[in-house]
Amino acid sequence: MTVEVLRLGHRPARDQRLTSHVALTARAFGADRVHVSGGEDSGPIETVESIVERFGGEFTAEREPSPKKLVKDWNGDVVHLTMYGLPVQDVVEEDGLTHSEADDVLVAVGSRKVHGWIYDEASYNVAVTSQPHSEVAALAVFLHMYFDGSELDLEHPGGEIEVVPSGQGKKTREPE
Amino acid sequence: MTVEVLRLGHRPARDQRLTSHVALTARAFGADRVHVSGGEDSGPIETVESIVERFGGEFTAEREPSPKKLVKDWNGDVVHLTMYGLPVQDVVEEDGLTHSEADDVLVAVGSRKVHGWIYDEASYNVAVTSQPHSEVAALAVFLHMYFDGSELDLEHPGGEIEVVPSGQGKKTREPE
Repeated sequence: MTVEVLRLGHRPARDQRLTSHVALTARAFGADRVHVSGGEDSGPIETVESIVERFGGEFTAEREPSPKKLVKDWNGDVVHLTMYGLPVQDVVEEDGLTHSEADDVLVAVGSRKVHGWIYDEASYNVAVTSQPHSEVAALAVFLHMYFDGSELDLEHPGGEIEVVPSGQGKKTREPE
Repeated sequence: MTVEVLRLGHRPARDQRLTSHVALTARAFGADRVHVSGGEDSGPIETVESIVERFGGEFTAEREPSPKKLVKDWNGDVVHLTMYGLPVQDVVEEDGLTHSEADDVLVAVGSRKVHGWIYDEASYNVAVTSQPHSEVAALAVFLHMYFDGSELDLEHPGGEIEVVPSGQGKKTREPE
């Protein structure tokens, strides 16, 4: 079972940091891979690779030149996060869109640019609130609900550094 | 009972969009106000005001020239979200840091710039995973856990437009 994320409409000049936040949120909240479609830009990919090297795990990032083909060929559910979709709390509960029940999932998030085709191609158009906010927030809360909180205990072995949770200050160690 | 958010270290040239995402996430996930500290910049404040006018509710945004004073004088809990903190799932459960049990809460999120003092002044340093990702994601998931999902049903009356949740396309209406 795999959970992957598709970032639509990345604009190199404007979306560098937001796309990096989307990618790192995907990793931290238990996805296996992020596909970045839109303008050619190795920035977010390199950010992810650097974080994986330092903090571990097997998350990968790649450019996606054919997002429509990825979606059409996806063998499982495609979840498009949009404020116009059906409430996430209903979809997760009523349609069993959870890690324990669902097939492979591709979670698509847009940028400011509109991508009309994804509304038609998605298995589900899902709203994390019907309010305008952030694709980063929508992705994080969707994955948190999809994994039912288990993603918070996820470990990322094989890195160079590990955070030691602490009530005060910053503590890190080298993994054993 | 009030829940407010403090955005630390906003840099006008670089953080415009991320700070707007922090502010709109605060609004969508049930906070009452966002304080933006750092460089002088009316951009994120105007973004929030425009969204509130169109989509309703009573959320407010303001510049905060004295974040240390705000934190020191806060009459309730100050929750600093940092990947170095204690696991959110433990803090919410063991310390009763939930909307039904807690006092007024100020949730502080940093930018890339480091703000050492907040580690000492916060009531809780809380990690939404011990991995590097995004202050937007951390804020969204913290508020979702703090409100125990009830924020997803929140209404924002008084706007000009309302989204009608839909499985296909974009539907809106004028509120009655």
